[in-house]
Amino acid sequence: MGYDALHERFRRIGDLNHALAMLSWDEAVMMPADSGSVRGEALATLTGMVHELTAAPETGELVDAAEQEDLGPWQAMNVAKIRHGWDAARAVPTDLVRALSRATSACEQTWRVARAENDWDAVVDKLRIVVDLSREKARALAATFGCEPYDALLDDYEPGLTRTDIEPVFTELGAALPDMVDDALSRQAAARAPQGPFPIERQDALGRALMAAVGFDFGRGRLDVSHHPFCGGDPDDTRITTRYNENDFLESMFAVLHETGHAMYEQGLPRDWRGQPVGHAGGMALHESQSLLMEMQVCRGAPFIEFAAPIIQRALLGAETDAAEWQPDNLVKLAAKVERGFIRVDADELTYPLHVILRYRLETALLDGSLTVGDIPDAWNEGMSSSLGLSTAGNFKDGCMQDVHWFAGLIGYFPSYTLGAVMAAQIFRAVRDGIPGLDDAVRQGRFSVLFDWLREHVHGRGSIRPSLELVAGVSGRRLATDAFLDHLRTRYGLD
Amino acid sequence: MGYDALHERFRRIGDLNHALAMLSWDEAVMMPADSGSVRGEALATLTGMVHELTAAPETGELVDAAEQEDLGPWQAMNVAKIRHGWDAARAVPTDLVRALSRATSACEQTWRVARAENDWDAVVDKLRIVVDLSREKARALAATFGCEPYDALLDDYEPGLTRTDIEPVFTELGAALPDMVDDALSRQAAARAPQGPFPIERQDALGRALMAAVGFDFGRGRLDVSHHPFCGGDPDDTRITTRYNENDFLESMFAVLHETGHAMYEQGLPRDWRGQPVGHAGGMALHESQSLLMEMQVCRGAPFIEFAAPIIQRALLGAETDAAEWQPDNLVKLAAKVERGFIRVDADELTYPLHVILRYRLETALLDGSLTVGDIPDAWNEGMSSSLGLSTAGNFKDGCMQDVHWFAGLIGYFPSYTLGAVMAAQIFRAVRDGIPGLDDAVRQGRFSVLFDWLREHVHGRGSIRPSLELVAGVSGRRLATDAFLDHLRTRYGLD
Repeated sequence: MGYDALHERFRRIGDLNHALAMLSWDEAVMMPADSGSVRGEALATLTGMVHELTAAPETGELVDAAEQEDLGPWQAMNVAKIRHGWDAARAVPTDLVRALSRATSACEQTWRVARAENDWDAVVDKLRIVVDLSREKARALAATFGCEPYDALLDDYEPGLTRTDIEPVFTELGAALPDMVDDALSRQAAARAPQGPFPIERQDALGRALMAAVGFDFGRGRLDVSHHPFCGGDPDDTRITTRYNENDFLESMFAVLHETGHAMYEQGLPRDWRGQPVGHAGGMALHESQSLLMEMQVCRGAPFIEFAAPIIQRALLGAETDAAEWQPDNLVKLAAKVERGFIRVDADELTYPLHVILRYRLETALLDGSLTVGDIPDAWNEGMSSSLGLSTAGNFKDGCMQDVHWFAGLIGYFPSYTLGAVMAAQIFRAVRDGIPGLDDAVRQGRFSVLFDWLREHVHGRGSIRPSLELVAGVSGRRLATDAFLDHLRTRYGLD
Repeated sequence: MGYDALHERFRRIGDLNHALAMLSWDEAVMMPADSGSVRGEALATLTGMVHELTAAPETGELVDAAEQEDLGPWQAMNVAKIRHGWDAARAVPTDLVRALSRATSACEQTWRVARAENDWDAVVDKLRIVVDLSREKARALAATFGCEPYDALLDDYEPGLTRTDIEPVFTELGAALPDMVDDALSRQAAARAPQGPFPIERQDALGRALMAAVGFDFGRGRLDVSHHPFCGGDPDDTRITTRYNENDFLESMFAVLHETGHAMYEQGLPRDWRGQPVGHAGGMALHESQSLLMEMQVCRGAPFIEFAAPIIQRALLGAETDAAEWQPDNLVKLAAKVERGFIRVDADELTYPLHVILRYRLETALLDGSLTVGDIPDAWNEGMSSSLGLSTAGNFKDGCMQDVHWFAGLIGYFPSYTLGAVMAAQIFRAVRDGIPGLDDAVRQGRFSVLFDWLREHVHGRGSIRPSLELVAGVSGRRLATDAFLDHLRTRYGLD
């Protein structure tokens, strides 16, 4: 009785989450410019309803009852996840939740204007409040769960992840990558970019052709345009977006393939557990591993580009071509371009982790009090100078103000990006071991062998195990940097 | 305290209704083909939540308390409408609500297939169940409100409307229209339709140009494509749709203008009462009056077509033209074409009421038991034969199976369409009296004089008065047929 009632309660929560996912997608893709206020109210009300149902005393009572029942492993993990969410929801005092919500909302709005104006002073006081309240929230969660405050924040994005898991990975990458970037840049072969402009309709057709080829189910999903690419919606209605650069079709093509990786994960989640916590994707890091496995491990590699080249030519030129810049060998070079830059979201896979590691070092220091908000710009400049040789002195816009995360109260999120890249490499090594002839299959467009494997070992597992355990399970070892570093050495022809 | 808490409660309900409106729009316009099941679940859950909050005992207690407070007229009407909704929600036993929901869902699904196959036998049993349960629901509501059962159903679509209001109107129209149709057909002047095809992008641009010209706020609304045109969303995010016929641009153009009429009403509702029952549009009949005032009274008339002709020419041909078929006098004739046909939604304004009156006669007879479901096809054939001279014997598809309404349990809805047409004529007569030089303003594209008047007298009034009272108020007399019949005589050149 306890379990069934709990399941039904989360079916209702799942329906509210479906509404929230669709309203958020609509806000980014469809909503008229001046309708934001009513939408913001509605999102807040529905989010509040989800929180009320999740944290209600009755939910705790149902969990108590369900824990006494004879449950299967999926049911048991579902109850465990509900218990954890209930504890987390009740650990943070309501006043603090409200104060944080108000502070992040004010800070994010100020940031939007201040970033464009390179005006750090305009936002620093508001960010200080967000960081102070986030520290308070982290301490409250840490007290409930008996863990470190930063680990309590990490847990919200990737359940079970701790600094102990991150430190060795980031230390090794931080040590190895700067020299590898030097090396890659010195070896980088010249490549000629095909000349645009490439009309958006043709790029759109190309994206759809590749999505369909890899197995995206258009009967349960869409591709649209938004300011930043994202994957939204839910497993039965998965909506990815991209944006178009008329002079560079590869940008949007790889963005679409990246989001398709997220989408394939969503569409492959276990059907029997829709809306239930155990049926959700593992966490942000594992989710990112699936987009990066798709983009970095598969689609930027030679076999995929050999498969895609004629499709690209037909979609963009109307016919196949012998012109050198359109041939796979040239496109492979373009897909592996390395460049030191200020902006994380524009970074290639070799420099990207250095951006993330900087943010991780700073946010852990903010949390333990060894860095103050006022000192962020100097620390940022120092970090960028030493890891990528770029000074951000006075350049807040392209420095510490470039990402929305901290201003929106998202502390503990950044590590997911690079852990995802490391997981992707380790999982893909297991995929290669498990599927002989994988490169040929990709070259021939037989992607079902890849996704059958991923559905069995990753997608279809939902949240039945913590992500780090899942990765260790499929790869036979704890998460480590070697598969990722090997991948980088091979792709960029390093020693 | 009672009032404030009630207001806050309906703010939450308003947010749920915003979500429902957007999810329904998305379902019709954006949703992938195979995502219907999760969407259906989510819509049912959110609808259930609205019902729970509306009908909760606590709502009744808050109403009791609010009724003792010193309230302004809008607050008082808001409480009165909440009280009425609460009574209605509690009048029908939960078991009956569920049974009706299941029965209509099953019947509507069967109808979709059976209609295409002209198979009345396949759906008759399910329709019988829907009608029986609807009668039961009507009796339950009638017992609570002390009214006739059919009036209880009417009230759901247009609060306060009764058969007593409808009978004289429909009797007069039913008597006058058949001869007027004969007369109009005999006088109908030849007109040449501009030759297509008209690409969808150009028709879309035309629709947008006209929407913008009349004052639709694209900052708080959109135009998209769906299977049937509709106006969805809500006052701060009003979403209309159309469909395109590449060979006949007038079809979509007038559909867009019709939906724009609905949208202008929504966008003009009182800002201070968003989400509250008193801030909603008056009712289905009054809503239809605003779309028909726009389409029939304004846009199919010569002044508007004189204004629109050059816009039409530029949008569809790229430049203005002297060709005869594109001139206002020819377009005016095309816009006033009369034709006897089987299908209500395709009917012109002269024959439309005859379709509605037939449905009204049949559904009132179904409700009082003087007609059985099994006798519908014969009664339909008889009604169509006598009013429009068309036999539907054996032709269920274009006869009694053409509309979803009864199969979906919507009994009492049909009269709104024709009452809306009658209201539109009567309100428009008041508009003319109130705005000297209106035709010139329309001819010159100065639509703000029209919408300023409508906002002051209709749109901005929300539900502060029942629709029939509002119409009587603005026009100085009870709803009657003379303004509508005069309009038809003038437009179609009848005696």
